[in-house]
Amino acid sequence: MSSTSINVDRLNQYLLGSFAEARTEARERVKDTRLHKIEGQVLADQRQHVFNNLKILVEQDAISRAFPTELGGRDDHGGNISAFEELVIADPSMQIKAGVQWGLFGSAVLHLGTEEHHRKWIPQIISLELPGAFAMTEAGHGSDVASIGTTATYDEDAEEFVIHTPFRAAWKDYLGNAALHGRAATVFAQLITKGVNHGVHCFMVPIRDEDGNLLPGVGAEDDGVKGGLNGIDNGMLHFTNVRIPRTNLLNRYGDVATDGTYSSSIDSPGRRFFTMISTLVQGRVSLDGASIAASKVGLGIAVTYANQRRQFAAAGNREQLLLDYGRHQRRLIPLLAKAYAGTFAHDELLLKFDAVFSGREDNDEARQDLETLAAALKPVSTWDAMDTLQECREACGGAGFMAENRLTSLRADLDIYTTFEGDNNVLLQLVGKRLLTEFAGQLKGMEPLGLATFAAKSLAENFYSHSGLRNVVQDALDTASERRTAKNLKDPQVQHALLSARVRMAVEEIAKALNAVRKASPGDQADVFNQHQNSLVLASKAHARLLQWEAFTRAIEAFEEKHGDSWDGTAQVLTWVRDVFALTVIEEELGWYMMHGLISPHRGRTLTEYLDRLITRLRPHAQDLVDAFGYTQEHYRAPISSGREQERQDEAHAYYEKLRKDPDAPVSEKTLRAKEKAAK
Amino acid sequence: MSSTSINVDRLNQYLLGSFAEARTEARERVKDTRLHKIEGQVLADQRQHVFNNLKILVEQDAISRAFPTELGGRDDHGGNISAFEELVIADPSMQIKAGVQWGLFGSAVLHLGTEEHHRKWIPQIISLELPGAFAMTEAGHGSDVASIGTTATYDEDAEEFVIHTPFRAAWKDYLGNAALHGRAATVFAQLITKGVNHGVHCFMVPIRDEDGNLLPGVGAEDDGVKGGLNGIDNGMLHFTNVRIPRTNLLNRYGDVATDGTYSSSIDSPGRRFFTMISTLVQGRVSLDGASIAASKVGLGIAVTYANQRRQFAAAGNREQLLLDYGRHQRRLIPLLAKAYAGTFAHDELLLKFDAVFSGREDNDEARQDLETLAAALKPVSTWDAMDTLQECREACGGAGFMAENRLTSLRADLDIYTTFEGDNNVLLQLVGKRLLTEFAGQLKGMEPLGLATFAAKSLAENFYSHSGLRNVVQDALDTASERRTAKNLKDPQVQHALLSARVRMAVEEIAKALNAVRKASPGDQADVFNQHQNSLVLASKAHARLLQWEAFTRAIEAFEEKHGDSWDGTAQVLTWVRDVFALTVIEEELGWYMMHGLISPHRGRTLTEYLDRLITRLRPHAQDLVDAFGYTQEHYRAPISSGREQERQDEAHAYYEKLRKDPDAPVSEKTLRAKEKAAK
Repeated sequence: MSSTSINVDRLNQYLLGSFAEARTEARERVKDTRLHKIEGQVLADQRQHVFNNLKILVEQDAISRAFPTELGGRDDHGGNISAFEELVIADPSMQIKAGVQWGLFGSAVLHLGTEEHHRKWIPQIISLELPGAFAMTEAGHGSDVASIGTTATYDEDAEEFVIHTPFRAAWKDYLGNAALHGRAATVFAQLITKGVNHGVHCFMVPIRDEDGNLLPGVGAEDDGVKGGLNGIDNGMLHFTNVRIPRTNLLNRYGDVATDGTYSSSIDSPGRRFFTMISTLVQGRVSLDGASIAASKVGLGIAVTYANQRRQFAAAGNREQLLLDYGRHQRRLIPLLAKAYAGTFAHDELLLKFDAVFSGREDNDEARQDLETLAAALKPVSTWDAMDTLQECREACGGAGFMAENRLTSLRADLDIYTTFEGDNNVLLQLVGKRLLTEFAGQLKGMEPLGLATFAAKSLAENFYSHSGLRNVVQDALDTASERRTAKNLKDPQVQHALLSARVRMAVEEIAKALNAVRKASPGDQADVFNQHQNSLVLASKAHARLLQWEAFTRAIEAFEEKHGDSWDGTAQVLTWVRDVFALTVIEEELGWYMMHGLISPHRGRTLTEYLDRLITRLRPHAQDLVDAFGYTQEHYRAPISSGREQERQDEAHAYYEKLRKDPDAPVSEKTLRAKEKAAK
Repeated sequence: MSSTSINVDRLNQYLLGSFAEARTEARERVKDTRLHKIEGQVLADQRQHVFNNLKILVEQDAISRAFPTELGGRDDHGGNISAFEELVIADPSMQIKAGVQWGLFGSAVLHLGTEEHHRKWIPQIISLELPGAFAMTEAGHGSDVASIGTTATYDEDAEEFVIHTPFRAAWKDYLGNAALHGRAATVFAQLITKGVNHGVHCFMVPIRDEDGNLLPGVGAEDDGVKGGLNGIDNGMLHFTNVRIPRTNLLNRYGDVATDGTYSSSIDSPGRRFFTMISTLVQGRVSLDGASIAASKVGLGIAVTYANQRRQFAAAGNREQLLLDYGRHQRRLIPLLAKAYAGTFAHDELLLKFDAVFSGREDNDEARQDLETLAAALKPVSTWDAMDTLQECREACGGAGFMAENRLTSLRADLDIYTTFEGDNNVLLQLVGKRLLTEFAGQLKGMEPLGLATFAAKSLAENFYSHSGLRNVVQDALDTASERRTAKNLKDPQVQHALLSARVRMAVEEIAKALNAVRKASPGDQADVFNQHQNSLVLASKAHARLLQWEAFTRAIEAFEEKHGDSWDGTAQVLTWVRDVFALTVIEEELGWYMMHGLISPHRGRTLTEYLDRLITRLRPHAQDLVDAFGYTQEHYRAPISSGREQERQDEAHAYYEKLRKDPDAPVSEKTLRAKEKAAK
């Protein structure tokens, strides 16, 4: 039907992104069968397997990119994350254990420590001679790091810090490397000196000797079996007056002199805390990318299978391919579009991350933008990975449930990505607060028309008049012809207007509610905020979708610029994928759009019908679209996508064809009865 | 705020349902720690553990209720399923392995076999002397059982059937008891005699000798590690000309005489097939109940935790309880309402099942209704269980990911419930086809106004005029006052009108599209059906929600009738829960309702706001509502819901209170700076 086709190689190259070399190298590396997760191992064996594999990564110099050149690294931050993300394909436990050692423990020393710390510990960390835990989270405080209970009290006489766990809820928990392999930990604790608590700082604390025995005052417990990632020895740590040298304070942003005097380059304790914490943003950046990688592998497996697997006889013919079913297309193709959107947005996030961490663009605003971008994208990509892997698993039926076919295993391992490195809901609330702040800032810009005056007008009117959006959206919706509406729905301006209106109107609504109680008691203000917490989180999610859409659109433009030849249908197909993404996201909240007057009920139907048509149009390209991700059977390593299904289908088909031609083959009772009936 | 309260004991009694005695007995039984899943075992140990536990169930006479009294059972079908469902609480693998042995293998002999078979095998099956596999599904055919490839060809001379697997895709697969413990299998195969294929029939085929060696011609392979349910030895079976006595055909619905003559009490091969298959409906019935039980345990754990766990300082006070956050309420309380709806609908399903299987109401129509009801409810409850367990897991953060807290483990084990005993999407399509048939039947009833004339009118008009719905819905929506609209939204007639309109209008739309091509080629007709497959599945899901709502509403009425005392707020709270259920379901498809003119955009906002208010209103009752499910800590056995969290919170709170009163305690730098600033 469609003569448009994708140039798979070209698209594959493009999708590798801004750090293609590092990513390609890592994708080659993870083909190594030694690195692959072994399903069904007991805990101890899984942990040993993964620990051994970290050593292979060290041998292959696969993990040092982010460290400074003078310490054996390459100062390549974006490339490091790109390569790191691909480790998920071999074994998510290996990825996260590597993340603990080099991304968290190592990064804490690198970003929170100073030169002496770097010289002393970074080489040992890179070489895995010093395996370490990153002891931030406590049983009582996960996302609210500022409230942790562990204390580090300076003893002037001994020139030592005393690390102490004051109550059970202050036990450090869920720490990789804590139960077994860690010899030291970067411990976050309230720094107290001269009777003043200067807030959370990070300390290097030895925890085990060379034989693996816990040091005096250090307690550890094993978290045992988890829902996934069982190759990592997560555990708890607690400290009973454990003494460490003063110089073990990682003192980049705050220091204590021998006499106990505290000093910091950052005056405000709040800003100091956020500066320290923000050095750890790479965790979120990499989870975004790893989740998208896992989604792609899942989609690769499920789409390949659905293009070979047949079930239920089609009208008079061979059984029908799963992917030819309307429902099956509706289940998988929008997820495919989300994986594309995630890929392009992630590349922008990587570029931003690299700019900040390389120092090319390291300022407060850039850091804050990076934080917000990561906090917005990580929740949607980790949730998308859950939805995608689950839908892929169900789309493969019983075969999808077999561990050998990867889908359940990836899903179980990635589950925790939705709540670690920042609980998704907490992250989205952070984004929401930033959106509210920005909104308030914009309002200030248009004084004297303040928020109060603002509130008098109707929302929609307000919105349209300030954004200049009115014409675009209204044109799209007021037109009498449904076809014209469909045409409008593929207009990027219309898509953008709708997606951004979703965010802006929600934020405006919440801002007004908050403004109305700005003179009320803090308790009442908190109540009003709480009443709108759910809407704010949903608005932030919509904001993330908008960011993905914008990245997708920019990527298509850049692709067209690069490969402008008109015979190549790739950009055309990509545009359809982008349209499916936009309309899927809008359809998921169609009620919201209608309630806010952005889409009329009459036109809502057009959207759903047009989305159906687009999905049908993409069906012939589904295989190319997953192939273009660049993963091969060595990455999928799932028997169901290996071509085995095709062989079986062909064998069964040949058997029935032979029977059909064989005059002695049994006839079916149904056929006989039909003939008898006809004869009567 | 609210003085309304729940009588937890009374509600608990009520929720136990129509087979309370059997359910209570089973809930006591599953407290036995020997029966509990052990996390982290290797495959072989898990399988042995579960097999041993089946023997405990036999010793306790826990599994024979459904069998005839004269063979050692109790002829108690509803009670049997109720008790069986509760096994999921101890270990889903034990539940499903018991289901394989007694629910599938045993039921096949009971329902498809005749007296001789019963006498010969049922006692051995009950006692587990004869462990067996239920060999229906093949690698190539899961949901489409009619198309399986295995053949059973009658050999008149030997008076034997020859069981044969003609190609790789016809290997039996995913069978519990196949890899290890099965000594026989009830094998579904195409029955061929005298050159005629009479379609799928079931045969008792010995597969292993007493020492566990495979019999000649029988091949078996192990499915290995799965995404869950690893206590079951799922595997493949294939047969190379395996000979069994003629009398091993389970011949209740079709028999072959010694001379090879086929006979059946059911003339039509199609109806015969569906009659045989329909005897297996109890699998679906029990998965519906087991999924709801698992959801309740998940909610019990997550709600209890959220009522003890605090995070982030509230305005000037102690940290805030998780369940006091608006977002947290929005995440959990609608799922709680779905678990209630599921419970009441399931009880009606159990009653229907019991009526049919006890013979009290065993006729074609009742069987068909039971089939449809099970096919509608099982998909929504299994999907709800996935959503619920995942949301509960995320709502408990890192602690939710620890296997000891049950949530990930239950989720992994129950994942396959969405595609076994009928893939959810396939089941919903069956329901959809039934809805289309019923719709066509109704139209016939109102001739001469046929489908063609019908099509000329607008959908909404059509719908309203035929259903008498117009006034109810329009009144609710046309009113000028938003408060009145909210009032209307809690009117059960309005809820019912909206939920049923959702189904009926969608079915009508699809029926019209199909009617428009009724004279086209089969291929074109199939294309049009395929284009509407997604809408049909969604309509069937909406139909299931309607059935749940109706059951919920009937249950409240019955509760009120039983406990009419006005001082008891239970019925009032239940009504709010029912309202949350209805409005949640409607809100999830608000776009659809608006597009079809059933809810105006202006009023849609009222719905969301009213739902928010209802959720807030239920918040104080959340603990009572989960407690009323009747599960205790012995069922939850999750450290996070054990009260441990409360102890830790109290300990931490006491520590900070002590510091607050201690003049020598460290002051925070933030406080100091604030004071300095104030002093200036």
